[in-house]
Amino acid sequence: PTPYDLGTPEGVLGAEELRLVDAWWRAANYLAVGQIYLMANPLLREPLQAEHVKPRLLGHFGTVPGLNLAYVHANRAIKARDLNAVFVAGPGHGGPGPNACAWLEGTYSELYSHIGRDERGMRAFFHQFSFPGGVPSHCAPETPGSFHEGGELGYSLLHAYGAALDSPELTVFCVVGDGEAETGPLAGSWHAAKFIDPARDGAVLPILALNEYKIANPTLLARIPEAELLELMRGYGYDPHVVAGDDPGTVHQLYAETLETCLDAIAEIQRRARSTDEVPGPDDAGPRWPMIIMRTPKGWTCPPQVDGQQVEGTFRAHQVPLPAARTDGTHRAVLEQWLRSYRPEELFDDEGRPVQELLDLPPTGTRRMSDNPVANGGALLRDLRLPDWRDYGVDVPNPGTTAHEATKVLGTWLRDVTRDNPTSFLTMAPDELASNRLQDILEVTGRRWQAQEGEFDERLDRQGRVIEVLSEHLCEGLLEGYLLSGRHGAFTCYEAFIHIVDSMFNQHAKWLQASAQVPWRRPIASLNYLLSSHVWRQDHNGFTHQDPGFLDVVLNKDPSIVRIYLPPDANTLLSTFDHCLRSRHYVNVVVAGKQPQFDYLSVEDAGLHCARGAGIWDWASSHDDAGTLPDVVLGAAGEIPTLEVLAAAAILRERLPDLRVRVVNVVDLMRLLPEDEHPHGLSDRDFDTLFTATQPVIFAFHGYPWLVHRLTYRRANHSGIHVRGYKERGTTTTPFDMVMLNDLDRFHLVMDVIDRVPSLGASAAGLRQEMADARLRARTYTRENGVDDPAVAGWTWPF
Amino acid sequence: PTPYDLGTPEGVLGAEELRLVDAWWRAANYLAVGQIYLMANPLLREPLQAEHVKPRLLGHFGTVPGLNLAYVHANRAIKARDLNAVFVAGPGHGGPGPNACAWLEGTYSELYSHIGRDERGMRAFFHQFSFPGGVPSHCAPETPGSFHEGGELGYSLLHAYGAALDSPELTVFCVVGDGEAETGPLAGSWHAAKFIDPARDGAVLPILALNEYKIANPTLLARIPEAELLELMRGYGYDPHVVAGDDPGTVHQLYAETLETCLDAIAEIQRRARSTDEVPGPDDAGPRWPMIIMRTPKGWTCPPQVDGQQVEGTFRAHQVPLPAARTDGTHRAVLEQWLRSYRPEELFDDEGRPVQELLDLPPTGTRRMSDNPVANGGALLRDLRLPDWRDYGVDVPNPGTTAHEATKVLGTWLRDVTRDNPTSFLTMAPDELASNRLQDILEVTGRRWQAQEGEFDERLDRQGRVIEVLSEHLCEGLLEGYLLSGRHGAFTCYEAFIHIVDSMFNQHAKWLQASAQVPWRRPIASLNYLLSSHVWRQDHNGFTHQDPGFLDVVLNKDPSIVRIYLPPDANTLLSTFDHCLRSRHYVNVVVAGKQPQFDYLSVEDAGLHCARGAGIWDWASSHDDAGTLPDVVLGAAGEIPTLEVLAAAAILRERLPDLRVRVVNVVDLMRLLPEDEHPHGLSDRDFDTLFTATQPVIFAFHGYPWLVHRLTYRRANHSGIHVRGYKERGTTTTPFDMVMLNDLDRFHLVMDVIDRVPSLGASAAGLRQEMADARLRARTYTRENGVDDPAVAGWTWPF
Ligand SMILES: Cc1ncc(C[n+]2csc(CCOP(=O)(O)OP(=O)(O)O)c2C)c(N)n1
Ligand SMILES: Cc1ncc(C[n+]2csc(CCOP(=O)(O)OP(=O)(O)O)c2C)c(N)n1
Ligand SMILES: [Mg+2]
Ligand SMILES: [Mg+2]
Repeated sequence: PTPYDLGTPEGVLGAEELRLVDAWWRAANYLAVGQIYLMANPLLREPLQAEHVKPRLLGHFGTVPGLNLAYVHANRAIKARDLNAVFVAGPGHGGPGPNACAWLEGTYSELYSHIGRDERGMRAFFHQFSFPGGVPSHCAPETPGSFHEGGELGYSLLHAYGAALDSPELTVFCVVGDGEAETGPLAGSWHAAKFIDPARDGAVLPILALNEYKIANPTLLARIPEAELLELMRGYGYDPHVVAGDDPGTVHQLYAETLETCLDAIAEIQRRARSTDEVPGPDDAGPRWPMIIMRTPKGWTCPPQVDGQQVEGTFRAHQVPLPAARTDGTHRAVLEQWLRSYRPEELFDDEGRPVQELLDLPPTGTRRMSDNPVANGGALLRDLRLPDWRDYGVDVPNPGTTAHEATKVLGTWLRDVTRDNPTSFLTMAPDELASNRLQDILEVTGRRWQAQEGEFDERLDRQGRVIEVLSEHLCEGLLEGYLLSGRHGAFTCYEAFIHIVDSMFNQHAKWLQASAQVPWRRPIASLNYLLSSHVWRQDHNGFTHQDPGFLDVVLNKDPSIVRIYLPPDANTLLSTFDHCLRSRHYVNVVVAGKQPQFDYLSVEDAGLHCARGAGIWDWASSHDDAGTLPDVVLGAAGEIPTLEVLAAAAILRERLPDLRVRVVNVVDLMRLLPEDEHPHGLSDRDFDTLFTATQPVIFAFHGYPWLVHRLTYRRANHSGIHVRGYKERGTTTTPFDMVMLNDLDRFHLVMDVIDRVPSLGASAAGLRQEMADARLRARTYTRENGVDDPAVAGWTWPF
Repeated sequence: PTPYDLGTPEGVLGAEELRLVDAWWRAANYLAVGQIYLMANPLLREPLQAEHVKPRLLGHFGTVPGLNLAYVHANRAIKARDLNAVFVAGPGHGGPGPNACAWLEGTYSELYSHIGRDERGMRAFFHQFSFPGGVPSHCAPETPGSFHEGGELGYSLLHAYGAALDSPELTVFCVVGDGEAETGPLAGSWHAAKFIDPARDGAVLPILALNEYKIANPTLLARIPEAELLELMRGYGYDPHVVAGDDPGTVHQLYAETLETCLDAIAEIQRRARSTDEVPGPDDAGPRWPMIIMRTPKGWTCPPQVDGQQVEGTFRAHQVPLPAARTDGTHRAVLEQWLRSYRPEELFDDEGRPVQELLDLPPTGTRRMSDNPVANGGALLRDLRLPDWRDYGVDVPNPGTTAHEATKVLGTWLRDVTRDNPTSFLTMAPDELASNRLQDILEVTGRRWQAQEGEFDERLDRQGRVIEVLSEHLCEGLLEGYLLSGRHGAFTCYEAFIHIVDSMFNQHAKWLQASAQVPWRRPIASLNYLLSSHVWRQDHNGFTHQDPGFLDVVLNKDPSIVRIYLPPDANTLLSTFDHCLRSRHYVNVVVAGKQPQFDYLSVEDAGLHCARGAGIWDWASSHDDAGTLPDVVLGAAGEIPTLEVLAAAAILRERLPDLRVRVVNVVDLMRLLPEDEHPHGLSDRDFDTLFTATQPVIFAFHGYPWLVHRLTYRRANHSGIHVRGYKERGTTTTPFDMVMLNDLDRFHLVMDVIDRVPSLGASAAGLRQEMADARLRARTYTRENGVDDPAVAGWTWPF
């Protein structure tokens, strides 16, 4: 392509400024192309040879010019207005763009000493990109200034809004791909602006990168009339501004002017919200935030045609416009022409450093978006002020007799956590806060809401510390953004529906794992899930709401990142959650009950038990530990399994008083793993001490039973471990019918013991038959009365 | 509440018709309240007593009146226009509504003989609802006329649009909850109308049930100015019509009129598309389909206040407005009053049958939405015309020497499947059809598209048999709707990102499992996933794109429903997919490669191997099977594991010629399960024959290694099975570096053999060291050259 002519279009940029902005843009584009193609000769000091070109050409150029354009103009605005800003690249596959900007700003060299801002550094910078042992092709944790990878598309706006929450001085420039905009999560997340309080939160400026294509198809939003697109954005509550064109000079002017308009509008929204006492009324629908629709060609400035086919401005520019540049001389010649069209000789000096005027263009220090600590949230993270959880514990005069709603008790503590950390702790819920019994939090705050209020709406609050929206994606994404930018929070969700964000969890866990390897990244607060309304208590919702499989998904991620807890009662839940909120850089999954359930452990015992993670419950066991092995170990992990195991233990103690039964409770599921597979794993010696190496173990598990086998298959006693759990049997029915459907009930556990303990068998045939009958009777009772037999439902620990 | 006064509002309904429509609505509401509360005295012939009320009150009333209103008006239109229509209840938790309508229409009694349309039947109908042993509270498979459960919210529109595809005569009335509308999938799915061809597809009429609340919160769409909501809907491409009010008479008139307007508009859109030759041009953005915004109170007609708090028209009406109706006399009195306010004595005759005028109101036979076979898609299902896959197979002169892109080969067959089944087979892809190498399908069809077309867009087609949209949710939901209504299809997706629809898959698998228990439901076509761009070949996308964990999610579902296949080459992929497209009522997951990869099996051998599911590859094994056990078994499942196992086997054969190595390849992963746990499971005898009961097994697996342990932990030789797989190590790098990162490479497999075969050990120390060196050399080569060592990359099967 011939070099484009910038011309002298009129506009807010003076001729000199226009030239400069464009030069920076050219430099960033040049550096992006260099990363994709070159492994040597970075400044084209010699004619381009095959051996200068990488053998594997991996990268995405199509989205880069748009990202770079948004970046350089953001820089201009940051300097003009002294903004505290970060940049989110929705199409994060355009990694070469943000990489280039960080290198131009100097951050890259500050963080990676071998990547200097000179020719040698540039060469290394190009070489490492998408190269074995180098850096990934996306905006990964390695990318300075990025807290959003953009590998799996759809979450850019959510991360942006999450970062803006409680950051009143922050501006987030968020580029959204027009392909990305087709995803469900992104389509839903435009509404996230309705949770942004202009008085206390920062601002997000969404920039829809309407380059008209995704990988191989046009995008929907590019193929509807512009009027319709504007209606859509207005319908989402925004004030859209279109910047369209393919002439660089004109677009620079238009973009610069539009950006000023938008930033003025943001400033005005914030000024009004912050400086007047004009309290918005119930009919006030909140501010209409500006947004930009940037309609520019995909692969802009790349060779217009290649091999006779249109590339620039089409889907063919998505990845590597000249795929044969190493082997095909014609492609290589076009590549060289393309690179030279950016006029590198004007952009870099003899040493390969950016020329002074380019060095002077961006802001300095942490005003550089590539160096803003918000994008390295751990650097800003401060500990929470946590009230002593022991003060919120319940009295347990006798185990298994009094009852509490565990999550309700936790709610009292979370209420005070919320109160004591008014700008750094948020709770997210998909319309399930009260349903999961955390409503006490609402005593000290409301639900964040900037839309209108109806007469009967309850506890809405423009500055609320709880965000409720019927979208697990929004809850997850906003929380991720909030955590990644250095704050704390929790997400409470129905257990079954947390699968909706499996993939988001995966990506977050990968980010945590990869970022832990990046020396300059600081650990962030853990992502804490509180899963309630779990599989065993879906009395009114039935089968669709019964799925404990998130645990299986979580266990596939790196052991250094993931933790799973199954506290059986209120005090253990308190202790567990306290631990989670203190932890760093993990994903903690806590599954807990919301229905009234027995208390077992006093505050003190709960603390000890949770610290152990797994331990013998002496008071529930029927042998004295003195020198003899138990005949059988009853293991339990989870609220309902613990209940059933205790009821089974009681039956065994009453009916087979000579049987030595050990009851083991597991709160920290990772304890079951070998110590070399997880930091929490028990040593073989500890495991064998607890579960024995020889005796039958009947293990009642909250989730799918095979998960326990997956955790324990290396243990000496593995073949002796018999697991009961959820085996995908369920419907709308009573609690005890549910456990019976899955053979997890007390009666079946007793039968399992009889079947497994060699000394029993035939001699306990009478009891076995009684148990089978008891199951039938219990089932029949529910069919006739619609509730569980009081003899079962009213059971308490009898000793 | 006092009975409402219908009044005599003017409108399209004559006074008599208004009275009738309202009477049917009252009857449906009465029957819904009855289901939630009553277990006896269904017609209130005696004063309501505590024992008439169920002990557990489980159900959701809030959404019911809106559902019933939409239903009765749909019925009126069906009769007037002889529509072929089905009903989708987005808020499926309002199960009592659709149940009631089906009972009134008689379908319920036709399908369930104990639920007659008389007093006794009504009593049983009420009793069974949400009762142990009865029917679920949601629109489950048990619900006549439902093909959408609505348990997990967000997919109603997708199921509706999926059903409308290729059903030119069908109208789908789709009620969308305003809470549901906040979910990402729903927010994205309004755009699905852009795939509806008015000439060849049916129509969807979305009805947004704007009852202003979800469980405990107002909804976002209810709290933005109406003008903004209208803009949003117009931006999505619709022509919205508002029906708002809380006076039943007025709303009936308004709704009836609006419905006529909308159905006229649909008819006109279809007439124009079907009867003229007015071909839409590239700027034609497709029709503007009508939709209804129904703004009526939540829990409409329930007691306005309870215990001094507003209930009707608020979130408090979401579930059970009078929770203490059994135990609290005041609640019970209000309940009785509420039930009587519907004037059951006017609605049901002495036998408890609906009075004649109500019997006459709905359409008859399969025009009843509760009896439309579209909602029992299996009844409409016809076999596909499948070309013989053998004709598409590749020649394999010698195993492991020639190479093909497996999915590309499959694409040639799918092309002809598409061609031969022009109205009953669709392929869905999130912009990945070509990327997954299925582009040959585009030789016979285009990508379905009703929006505008750009100059450089390729292969768009208003009637295309491929749907591409950058939303895994849309692909999945549309396909589910298409399958549920009796057609066939496939979904091709990057392996990692299929996790995005984990939860949708879960719900679909649950639907299949539960519907298989419903006698009148017929099996539907299987849901077929083709996962490519898998974990081992993400050279340019890196870590975010590396996740084989969908298999773990799938394996948690009922074994009667799920199947997993890992064909290692082109011919086995063809055979597998042919099998999948013939199967019924399963979810088939097929993971296959898209990069050039060795062919191993001829067409004939591929057919045999796939039928076996798992078998010895004699030609690759180094012992003759004659009376001796192998020293070691090398197992492989998956494209890349097969390659590495073969390369390892070759090394062993060359370097340790006396070692008896058996190579076993597994295509059908379920073979590994015990036969009593899965219909495909191998008997212990077969398993032990294949893998031996005693010899070390080194198993190279495509996914997370522990999955193989989960499948085999019951086998005699379990402790002898050593599994290699993906252990969450990855980045942007070369293919062989990826396998090395996870110790799945040929060299490491040889080391594993040496470590595990007792007769080797010290004697093979030299070879072991060579292997370690080879790994290091291979790694270094990539770091220096950016590609794999040709000695590795160029390897072919040497024998
Ligand atoms: C959820 C998800 N599905 C599919 C992909 C595969 N993919 C990578 S890039 C891309 C196209 C992106 O298009 P767009 O958002 O418009 O970005 P741009 O045009 O700026 O490159 C797709 C489909 C992905 N990364 N994430
Ligand atoms: C994905 C998902 N998240 C959460 C829930 C829990 N839930 C059940 S009903 C409901 C509220 C639904 O509100 P809306 O769609 O407005 O229905 P309606 O008001 O008509 O009952 C919620 C959040 C769910 N069913 N699905
Ligand atoms: Mg795009
Ligand atoms: Mg609602």
